Amino acid sequence: MFSQEEREVIYDVIYKRRDVRTFLPDPVSSEVIQRVLQAAHHAPSVGFMQPWNFILITSADIKKRLAWAAEKERRALAIHYEDERKTKFLELKVEGIIQAPLTICVTCDSTRGGSHVLGRNSIPETDILSVACAIQNMWLATCAEGLAMGWVSFYKKNDVRDILQIPPHIDPVAIISIGYTNEYPSAPILEQANWEKRRSLQNLIFYEEWGNQE
Amino acid sequence: MFSQEEREVIYDVIYKRRDVRTFLPDPVSSEVIQRVLQAAHHAPSVGFMQPWNFILITSADIKKRLAWAAEKERRALAIHYEDERKTKFLELKVEGIIQAPLTICVTCDSTRGGSHVLGRNSIPETDILSVACAIQNMWLATCAEGLAMGWVSFYKKNDVRDILQIPPHIDPVAIISIGYTNEYPSAPILEQANWEKRRSLQNLIFYEEWGNQE
Repeated sequence: MFSQEEREVIYDVIYKRRDVRTFLPDPVSSEVIQRVLQAAHHAPSVGFMQPWNFILITSADIKKRLAWAAEKERRALAIHYEDERKTKFLELKVEGIIQAPLTICVTCDSTRGGSHVLGRNSIPETDILSVACAIQNMWLATCAEGLAMGWVSFYKKNDVRDILQIPPHIDPVAIISIGYTNEYPSAPILEQANWEKRRSLQNLIFYEEWGNQE
Repeated sequence: MFSQEEREVIYDVIYKRRDVRTFLPDPVSSEVIQRVLQAAHHAPSVGFMQPWNFILITSADIKKRLAWAAEKERRALAIHYEDERKTKFLELKVEGIIQAPLTICVTCDSTRGGSHVLGRNSIPETDILSVACAIQNMWLATCAEGLAMGWVSFYKKNDVRDILQIPPHIDPVAIISIGYTNEYPSAPILEQANWEKRRSLQNLIFYEEWGNQE
């Protein structure tokens, strides 16, 4: 059982965790990274399939190629925005791959655990949902360690497969940047940039069936 | 910044969190549920789209129908297992929907945030990955509150849509059971049942590219 004080620490890290795009060059010790990855590895997974792998990248050359893949997609997305929204978008920093000392590609192996993973039969995408739970654990662990973490989703999966030699059946679910920062945001960066607002939780809750707010 | 002691509390909840299938009938107060849902709502989401809704179900009749949908799928899955694996599967308790005082259906609305959500253009399934991060926050929050939680993924989405009046474009990502328990597992129930083993983390880590274990 957790005490009242301990509960508050747990809620605190959940509220303080932020997606970060600005990093200092200071390296992260391998002991800290091992703790963060152990936290990821203790995420829940459907049928206990543990479908994740972690590719740790510190090579400047490989990070440069990943940043190139992200930059291509950023420009492709910019085309969909117009006028003020476009200006705002182009001002946003969408990734910090080059800056961050460590990049981690988190992957999902759908074949792990055999052909009939318990609980994955009805909803096959529960494998990538398990990987997302692992990534959320990494996020809370990095925050607890005083580190900053960013989740980059601007890339074509086949570009990342090519760069990191990932086999075709493996899904590169996320590119994660990890490092220290002196600009840890106090609110989501897209909220600070007036891109989106936080919704009211009460409007998102229904009772007994969809749409019923009592 | 978190102190060494606070960090240990955070890792502690990450390690102690379990998927639970056995619940006591004691109700959960709405204050506690609100804290758990606030934790979910403070998960990261792609483009800050916050695609989740939470349908809170306490009606015995609706829970019975959800349990029926899960039981159908359990029997459908059992057909894929043979011999010893089948016996073992049929002994497993795969859900506790009727027992748990509260069921929460967590959904994903892919249309929220408009047609071009920042960061979702390249990888569309980042919306359900965001919902999975919210569910992981709920899991850690329930554990911190001394509650037990189970994620049921044995169902056909259209059965759940019918039962809960969910529109066709909304994805019922997860059926969550929440309540108190006197059987909180010290290890994953599928590990305790010798269904699967925990893998060695070191075998899951690669360096610079896929397959490279240095």
